[in-house]
Amino acid sequence: MTAPAPVPVDDPDDPRLADYTSLTDVALRRRVEPALGLFMAEGEKVIRRALHAGYPMRSMLLTPRWAEAMGDLVERADAPVYVVSPALAERVTGFHVHRGALASMHRTPLPEPGDLLATARRLVVLEAVNDHTNVGAVFRSAAALGMDAVLLSPDCADPLYRRSVKVSMGAVFSLPYARLDRWPGGLAAVRDAGFTLLALTPAEGARDIAEAVAADRDARVALLLGAEGDGLTPRALAAADARVRIPMAHGIDSLNVAAAAAVACYALAHPR
Amino acid sequence: MTAPAPVPVDDPDDPRLADYTSLTDVALRRRVEPALGLFMAEGEKVIRRALHAGYPMRSMLLTPRWAEAMGDLVERADAPVYVVSPALAERVTGFHVHRGALASMHRTPLPEPGDLLATARRLVVLEAVNDHTNVGAVFRSAAALGMDAVLLSPDCADPLYRRSVKVSMGAVFSLPYARLDRWPGGLAAVRDAGFTLLALTPAEGARDIAEAVAADRDARVALLLGAEGDGLTPRALAAADARVRIPMAHGIDSLNVAAAAAVACYALAHPR
Repeated sequence: MTAPAPVPVDDPDDPRLADYTSLTDVALRRRVEPALGLFMAEGEKVIRRALHAGYPMRSMLLTPRWAEAMGDLVERADAPVYVVSPALAERVTGFHVHRGALASMHRTPLPEPGDLLATARRLVVLEAVNDHTNVGAVFRSAAALGMDAVLLSPDCADPLYRRSVKVSMGAVFSLPYARLDRWPGGLAAVRDAGFTLLALTPAEGARDIAEAVAADRDARVALLLGAEGDGLTPRALAAADARVRIPMAHGIDSLNVAAAAAVACYALAHPR
Repeated sequence: MTAPAPVPVDDPDDPRLADYTSLTDVALRRRVEPALGLFMAEGEKVIRRALHAGYPMRSMLLTPRWAEAMGDLVERADAPVYVVSPALAERVTGFHVHRGALASMHRTPLPEPGDLLATARRLVVLEAVNDHTNVGAVFRSAAALGMDAVLLSPDCADPLYRRSVKVSMGAVFSLPYARLDRWPGGLAAVRDAGFTLLALTPAEGARDIAEAVAADRDARVALLLGAEGDGLTPRALAAADARVRIPMAHGIDSLNVAAAAAVACYALAHPR
């Protein structure tokens, strides 16, 4: 089967561009994944990673320069490819299209937490991280630093929101994740699956994370991290097996959640 | 001396608010610190940290709620305090004023690199990191994780730009920094001061950072990090004593520079 030829479009109201219209608003309304929704992949590298991960493409919106640079993808695409000027791309989407390439992708069903718990050895569990940049940054670091999966509390931001996808550089496609539907009740399933729940907190009295990890190098560990600002809720802290901290200096009282996640994942993957 | 009473202002064109006018544009033009320029501290916590670090205040712009909550600061201020409605604050500055408090602060002269090299044991050196969010995030992590100072290449973004200050949570005030005026020539002074220059790169052939650090636990170390995307330039890599990498998984080829800095600082501060 030969792919259909790319379609030049010069009308911002062309209904075929509906997926890309006013993305900033539409996407903001989609804080949690709709069952059969779509998501946006932005830039050549991220689009390739979404396809590689098996997400079906709905369509692509490319500027002429990128339609040429991504010629192999255009040829293989089994979805319409719309070619528009950079100005039209910005007018339709409402933002500057990074690297001249957007793809509208179908979401696929999320795995159940139990599916991930059955095979993972190292987990990141996020509570109420509702900043898309932080969610994306945590996924990128967690994937790079050897975590096997991510579990999200019900109120975490959507990893497939445009900004999360972009900041993660597509790591949201390669690192499996699931959403717990009860919180913190859903953590019981994590412990029942044999994981030690380590809650990250800057509080005094918490154990140095490197010591906690070294004390049981064969443990299956779930790192529990809370939102920027307030950190983990008392309920989540109470549900953990132990409280661990990253030693800090200069009177600084906390790290950004993405930095804390990076350091904690590294400490877990590389015990002393 | 009693501080002058707070001044209610309701005219967006009041010349006393000039420091706060169209900050987004003015600040963007100030990529590099002007010798006698100003900078913005945003939010109560960051304003307190700027004062604690000794920066002289020019004025404060507060909404009524925050003028009350920050009453002790208002009383001690030796600079005018303007009280404005949230709507006026947004109209004047051109952005939503986070937590209803802005302070215009005087810059102070930067130390010379030699001053920092004389006393520091652990340095972060940034090359061409021109994203203000990343600069702020690196400062926050570097301060929290025990670095003593930061050196910047001539083309790094301004740590006192509003967004850098905010993302750093004020760590740009507590962690001393200086700007090298030659690049990479200025790195010779770092090495002459007795530092081992470790260049972070995801390239194969680089040594595991934990091994490199463990091999000489008493070394004074400068961690050299490059910009998001391209990483360190070949010239900077060539000027380093060794190339080190953070081991990565899942086929991810790099970390965000702020995450890489956090992990590298942690690995340096906590050798195996």
